[in-house]
Amino acid sequence: MPMITAVSSSLAIEHLFLFQQICGEKYVFVDEEVLHHYSHDETEDLHFLPDVVIKPGNAEEISSILKICNQYKIPVTPRAAGTGLSGGALPHLGGVLLSVERLNKIINIDERNLQVVTEPGVITEVLQNAIKEKGLFYPPDPSSRGSCMIGGNIAENSGGPKAVKYGVVKDYVLNLEVVLPTGEIIWTGANVLKNATGYNLTQLIVGSEGTLGIVTKAVLRLIPLPKLDLLMLVPFKDPVDACAAVSAIFAAGFVPSAMEFMERDAIEWSMRFVNDCIVPMNDETQAHLLIEVDGNDIDVLMKEMEGISEIVMGFNAGDILFADDAQQKAELWKLRRRVGEAVKSHSVYKEEDTVVPRAELPVLLKGVKEIGKKYGFHSVCYGHAGDGNLHVNIIKGELSDEQWNGSLKQGIIEIFELVKSLGGTISGEHGIGLVQKDYLPIVFNPVQMRLMKSIKALFDPANILNAGKIFD
Amino acid sequence: MPMITAVSSSLAIEHLFLFQQICGEKYVFVDEEVLHHYSHDETEDLHFLPDVVIKPGNAEEISSILKICNQYKIPVTPRAAGTGLSGGALPHLGGVLLSVERLNKIINIDERNLQVVTEPGVITEVLQNAIKEKGLFYPPDPSSRGSCMIGGNIAENSGGPKAVKYGVVKDYVLNLEVVLPTGEIIWTGANVLKNATGYNLTQLIVGSEGTLGIVTKAVLRLIPLPKLDLLMLVPFKDPVDACAAVSAIFAAGFVPSAMEFMERDAIEWSMRFVNDCIVPMNDETQAHLLIEVDGNDIDVLMKEMEGISEIVMGFNAGDILFADDAQQKAELWKLRRRVGEAVKSHSVYKEEDTVVPRAELPVLLKGVKEIGKKYGFHSVCYGHAGDGNLHVNIIKGELSDEQWNGSLKQGIIEIFELVKSLGGTISGEHGIGLVQKDYLPIVFNPVQMRLMKSIKALFDPANILNAGKIFD
Repeated sequence: MPMITAVSSSLAIEHLFLFQQICGEKYVFVDEEVLHHYSHDETEDLHFLPDVVIKPGNAEEISSILKICNQYKIPVTPRAAGTGLSGGALPHLGGVLLSVERLNKIINIDERNLQVVTEPGVITEVLQNAIKEKGLFYPPDPSSRGSCMIGGNIAENSGGPKAVKYGVVKDYVLNLEVVLPTGEIIWTGANVLKNATGYNLTQLIVGSEGTLGIVTKAVLRLIPLPKLDLLMLVPFKDPVDACAAVSAIFAAGFVPSAMEFMERDAIEWSMRFVNDCIVPMNDETQAHLLIEVDGNDIDVLMKEMEGISEIVMGFNAGDILFADDAQQKAELWKLRRRVGEAVKSHSVYKEEDTVVPRAELPVLLKGVKEIGKKYGFHSVCYGHAGDGNLHVNIIKGELSDEQWNGSLKQGIIEIFELVKSLGGTISGEHGIGLVQKDYLPIVFNPVQMRLMKSIKALFDPANILNAGKIFD
Repeated sequence: MPMITAVSSSLAIEHLFLFQQICGEKYVFVDEEVLHHYSHDETEDLHFLPDVVIKPGNAEEISSILKICNQYKIPVTPRAAGTGLSGGALPHLGGVLLSVERLNKIINIDERNLQVVTEPGVITEVLQNAIKEKGLFYPPDPSSRGSCMIGGNIAENSGGPKAVKYGVVKDYVLNLEVVLPTGEIIWTGANVLKNATGYNLTQLIVGSEGTLGIVTKAVLRLIPLPKLDLLMLVPFKDPVDACAAVSAIFAAGFVPSAMEFMERDAIEWSMRFVNDCIVPMNDETQAHLLIEVDGNDIDVLMKEMEGISEIVMGFNAGDILFADDAQQKAELWKLRRRVGEAVKSHSVYKEEDTVVPRAELPVLLKGVKEIGKKYGFHSVCYGHAGDGNLHVNIIKGELSDEQWNGSLKQGIIEIFELVKSLGGTISGEHGIGLVQKDYLPIVFNPVQMRLMKSIKALFDPANILNAGKIFD
C-alpha cells in the first residue's frame, strides 16, 4: 500500500482498505502525484488536495463506496473530466475524490428510437462523433467538448454555441441512472419523449452539480443531423450595436444555429493564442458576431444569411466575412472556442457567467463596462449572445491583490444585481459550484434557499456528496 | 350567506368567513349548483362534492387562503379549467376547491425577448391566438385547447400534436410564480433560456399536478411562427404497419410537425360525432396516420411530403389524401381533436395514456390487442405516434360491471407492465392524478416513491394541497 499523504479526520486507513476491496487496489490512489492531479479543475487557480482518489468501474462499486462514506460521514467529490469553471469538482473538504473516468462506454446508439445510452465518462466530442457517424446529432457542445465529459455536462446543465437553436443538456436528457448519496441506485424516469408520471426527478438531477447523486448512465435524445451550415463573422464598431442586432435577428423570425458575441480583445487574444488563424480586422472594429445557420436546403440557408446580413447592416456592421469552406469555418470556430483559454493564458482573471433575456444584452454590456470603470477593472466579454448568455472575464491586470481580493467583490455583486434586475440570473451554463455560492442570495430569497437546501438534505441526509457546493 | 350543503370535518363556518374576508363574499360559493359544477372534471364519470368553491383574484389572496388551510389542515384542490383526464382536479377529500379562473390575464407578450408572461386561468387557445397575432408561436396544444387553461397544462406537463417537433409544456416554461402550500409566494427561476443556478425548481413544479404549489404567473418561451404547413392523411390496412412507418419516417431524417395515429374506430366515431366532416374510407382501412410538416419554404415542405409519402408506401399505405386548403386541414384536425369526446359519447370507457420509445409502438399496439382478447375488452387506440404516446381507450361495451370494476384492472396492469418492459411509462401527458395512482408502483420502486413523497412532504408539510393525487 503506498504512503498516505493526508487523511482527513473522518477518513481512516480501514476505509481505504474497504475501498480497495470494492474497486481493486489499483484503482485507489493516495500517492501525491495523483492527489495533486485531481486537486484542481479549470476554475481560476484553485487547488485542494483530496485524501484519496478512487476510480470505480461501475454503478455497483460507486454504490458500495457511497454507503461507506454515508455511514462514516466521509466527504465525496464526484468528478468527470474536471473542466468545470465554477469549482464543482474541487475536493475542498478533502476526503474521497470519486472519478467516473472509467465509466467511459457508449452503451448503445439506438438508431430506431433516436436515443443514445452512455456512461458519464465519455468525452463529449467522442460521443458526438460516434453519433454523427450514424447521421444523428447530439447538439450540446461546450467549448471544452474535446476534453469535457458527458457526466460533467449533465451535472452543470451545459450549453455551448448550438443551444440557441437546439437547447441545452437538459433538453436532451430523457432518463438517468443515478447512485444516491445513501447508495441506492435508481432510474429517474423513462426512455420517452413525453412523461407526465410523477415528479421530474430527471430534471432535478440535471444541473444539480453532483450534489444529489452520481450519474452512472444517461439516456439522451438525438435528432437528425442537419446536412449543411453557413457561417459568417460580422464586425461592429460599437459592441452595444452588436448586442442590439442579436434580438433584432430573432425578432425578424430567424433562428440561427449559433449566435456568438466576442469583444475585440477576446478575438485578438485568441488569435495570438491559437497563432495560426488570422482574421482581418479593421482598427475601428470593437466586437464581432459569429453567426451560423444550418439545415438541409442550401437555398433556404442562403436566403437566411441574406436576411440576417440586411438586419446587421441596420446596426452599423462592417464588412461581413463569409466563411468560404470547411477549413475557414473550422478556423473561425477554433478562434471562438479557445477564447476562454486565451484569456486565462493572458492574465489572472475571474469569469462571470451572466445570463439575461436576450434583448437586455446591450443594457447588460453597458452596465458591466460602467461598473468596471467604477471599480477600476478591465473586462473581456464574449459568449452565447443568442441565449443572452454573456461571459464576463474580469482581468486582474493592474489591480492590486488587495483590490482583487477585496473591493472587486462589490463590483461583481453590482453586476449580478444588474443581471437580476433585467430578469436574468448569475449562471447560464457554468454552475454555482464553489466560487459563486456567496452570490446565490442575490437571486434567491430565504424561502427558495430553504427549499433547495431541504431537497439536498432529503437526497443526502449525511451531507457527504459534494457538500459545500451551490450553498453551504 | 347561502346554505351550506356539506362541511368536512376540518372545515368550519369560521373558516368560510375568513375566506370571504380574503376574496370578498361573492367569490366564496357554497350553493349546491356551484359545488356540483366543480365536483367533476373530464375523467370518466367521477364526481366528488367540495365543501366550498373559492375563486380568488390574485396570488396574495391564494396565499392567505393556503395559510388558513395549512393551519387548520383543510384539504385544497386547485383547479384551472377542469378538462383533465386523470382526476387531478377532483375534490375527492371535500374541503376547498380553489379555482384560478379569475387569474385570466395575459400580462405581457414580450416581442423583443420572445417571451410571454401569463396568468394560469387563460384558455390555451386564447393565449395561442394572441401570440399568433404577433407572428409568434407557443406550440403546446392539447386537443382540449379551446377549453383547457394554461395553468392546468403546466400542472400536467401537457403535450398535444405539435410536441413531436416542438416539445411539450416543460420545454416552454422558463419561470413560474408559485404559491406554496404554506402560503409563501416564490419565483422558481429566471426569465432566461439557459440556467445553471441552483436546483431546477421550475421543472419540479411543471407536471407536479397541483400537489407542490399553485402557479399564479408563468413566463413562457416563444418561437417564430412557421408560415406554412402541409397535411396528409395516410390509410393503412394494418394498424401495426402504420405504427412501424412512424419510426421509419424519423429514422430517414424527417421531423414532421405532427404525426398522429388513429385506429379505424377512432376516426369513424369522430366522423359520426362531429357530423360535418367526411373522410372517404376504404373498407379495408384499419388505421390512419395524420402527418403534418411545417416551415417557411414551400419547396422544402413539398420535398418532405414526397419523401414521407415514399416511406409510407413501403409500409403498405393506401391512397394518401393531401389536404387541399385551409378548410380541409381544419376538418381533418377537427376529426382528430374530437376523437376523445367521440369515444366518450359512444360508451363508458377508461383511457390509458401509454408512452414508449417510438419504435416500440408496433409491439405496444399488438400487445394491447392481445391483452384485450385475454380479458375480453375492446380498445380504441389513437394518439401522438411520433412521440410514442398511444391513448388506449378501453370500451365498456358488453363487459359486465363485475368485469369492468374487477378483472379489467389486471388487464390494465398487464398493459402497463408491457409499457415498462419497452422502456416506456404509464402517462405521457395526462398525469397520474387520482385514477392512475394505484398503478404507479409498476414503474417506480420504493426508493423512487420515497423520494417523491419526501419532496411532497417538504413542500407541503400539512399535506393539504391536492393530497392523495399521484400517490397516497
